[in-house]
Amino acid sequence: MNRFATQLDDYTVMINSTLDKLVPEIKTPQEKIFEAMRYSLLAGGKRIRPVLTLAVCEMFGGNISEAISFACAIEMIHTYSLIHDDLPAMDNDDFRRGVKTNHKVYGEGIAVLAGDALLNKAFEVMTSTLNENSSIDRKIKAIQVIANSAGTEGMIGGQVIDIESEGKSIDYETLRNMHALKTGALISASVIVGALIAGASQKDIEKVSVYASNLGLAFQIRDDILSEIGDSTKLGKNTGNDRERNKSTYVTVLGLDQSKAFLKKITNTAIDAVKDFGEKAEFLVELADYLLNREN
Amino acid sequence: MNRFATQLDDYTVMINSTLDKLVPEIKTPQEKIFEAMRYSLLAGGKRIRPVLTLAVCEMFGGNISEAISFACAIEMIHTYSLIHDDLPAMDNDDFRRGVKTNHKVYGEGIAVLAGDALLNKAFEVMTSTLNENSSIDRKIKAIQVIANSAGTEGMIGGQVIDIESEGKSIDYETLRNMHALKTGALISASVIVGALIAGASQKDIEKVSVYASNLGLAFQIRDDILSEIGDSTKLGKNTGNDRERNKSTYVTVLGLDQSKAFLKKITNTAIDAVKDFGEKAEFLVELADYLLNREN
Repeated sequence: MNRFATQLDDYTVMINSTLDKLVPEIKTPQEKIFEAMRYSLLAGGKRIRPVLTLAVCEMFGGNISEAISFACAIEMIHTYSLIHDDLPAMDNDDFRRGVKTNHKVYGEGIAVLAGDALLNKAFEVMTSTLNENSSIDRKIKAIQVIANSAGTEGMIGGQVIDIESEGKSIDYETLRNMHALKTGALISASVIVGALIAGASQKDIEKVSVYASNLGLAFQIRDDILSEIGDSTKLGKNTGNDRERNKSTYVTVLGLDQSKAFLKKITNTAIDAVKDFGEKAEFLVELADYLLNREN
Repeated sequence: MNRFATQLDDYTVMINSTLDKLVPEIKTPQEKIFEAMRYSLLAGGKRIRPVLTLAVCEMFGGNISEAISFACAIEMIHTYSLIHDDLPAMDNDDFRRGVKTNHKVYGEGIAVLAGDALLNKAFEVMTSTLNENSSIDRKIKAIQVIANSAGTEGMIGGQVIDIESEGKSIDYETLRNMHALKTGALISASVIVGALIAGASQKDIEKVSVYASNLGLAFQIRDDILSEIGDSTKLGKNTGNDRERNKSTYVTVLGLDQSKAFLKKITNTAIDAVKDFGEKAEFLVELADYLLNREN
């Protein structure tokens, strides 16, 4: 493996083993909830958000052992949103990350609760970091950034626009706003929190924020392209669903060729935003490239 | 009005006006989410939990302006749990607090998100109290008590046992454990947080905890009795649903007469637990009495 791949692998191993510890199987009368939470949380996934948190924290000379709780909380929030998004009342998806969706295995009631429980757990994990008295202001700020990005002015807000737009043809601005909220906000939070925990300056946080918002947009465009032309075996979910559901995507709004060109352009904008950090930003640059070319 | 009724009214007015401010209608493309959140949050309800927080805080000489954020966060968590509980995948209820349930008005997708958003907002509200530098340790502890009581080892855990028990005949111990988690944990948290914010001693916190756990149990038994024999107009929801669904309740497990006797007994246990606080506990004593005799 090259240096990037090794680093990505190291981060992912750390994230997975911490998630495994944070949500253990507990033998209680309600043990089903731990099983359902772990089913979706440990089902794989690219771990892009927590990887970003750790990588940005390290780039700014921070200690990733201080960032890991926040990184894992972000992944819990991302996973809860996927479980709820997949419900019949929302996207009604049967497969996710190559396996059956949570409600297909545990039923809708438990799936709703498993999502709720992961959101609640994310805040339990984050506030538990406040018991150690160091850098408390930074940690409080990190919790607030994450809470805000996950709420009505972030991820949930975007999901609402998504539901309200279903079956309608929406314009480019609406589409972009929807994704900026639905996926962009939490990706930006992942990056900002890594920088906050490392004690980065406001100016540096602004630079990585530009990286993050462009990366988030690129991520979504790549998703839409893969949804249209990707290999469902590699993706671990069915393709063509968006079109069937009359969902507006970058591909339906801009066309496939223009989407590909736009993806390339904003990936470069993301990379340019961290150029000032020189060699230290190598991982972030390679990550943007990796996401540009991903097949799942 | 007598002193108790006036005090209850004062607390309720304060809680309602704060909730109204904390979840404003914001004109954004996702405005529907604010409408849906407000629909359930401001639909009335007895506000028992936040009232307990404020009353206990005052009893211990605390400042209720410091407790109100936590009181409102608890009510948001309670409301989110009702919205999700009412979903077709769970209790499938059409009416709540005298009006249509959230999903009956906004659809299931938005109802799931409105619940998610209220839980997220509760944590946003609580962590925003940490921006003021006073009593930060107490506030952190309060957030942790609430998060824990709402999670898998509290409210969500109880709801899981409830779902898993549906259609089965369960024994008294299982029923009691289910309710201790499902409703008891958050009611206990409401009381403990009021005491924590006021800076009460560990010994005093233990005393009000006994009050709280017995009050929570009494509350549930009264609910089960009202579900069986109550007036659906006063209750604002249909009665007899539990029996139809083969749900085990205190009435089905203990019988109506024994449930009434048990309710009386544990209400007295609750009242005894705060006797040491003398006149200061008058409101808590009257509240227990009020809940014992409530018709909705």
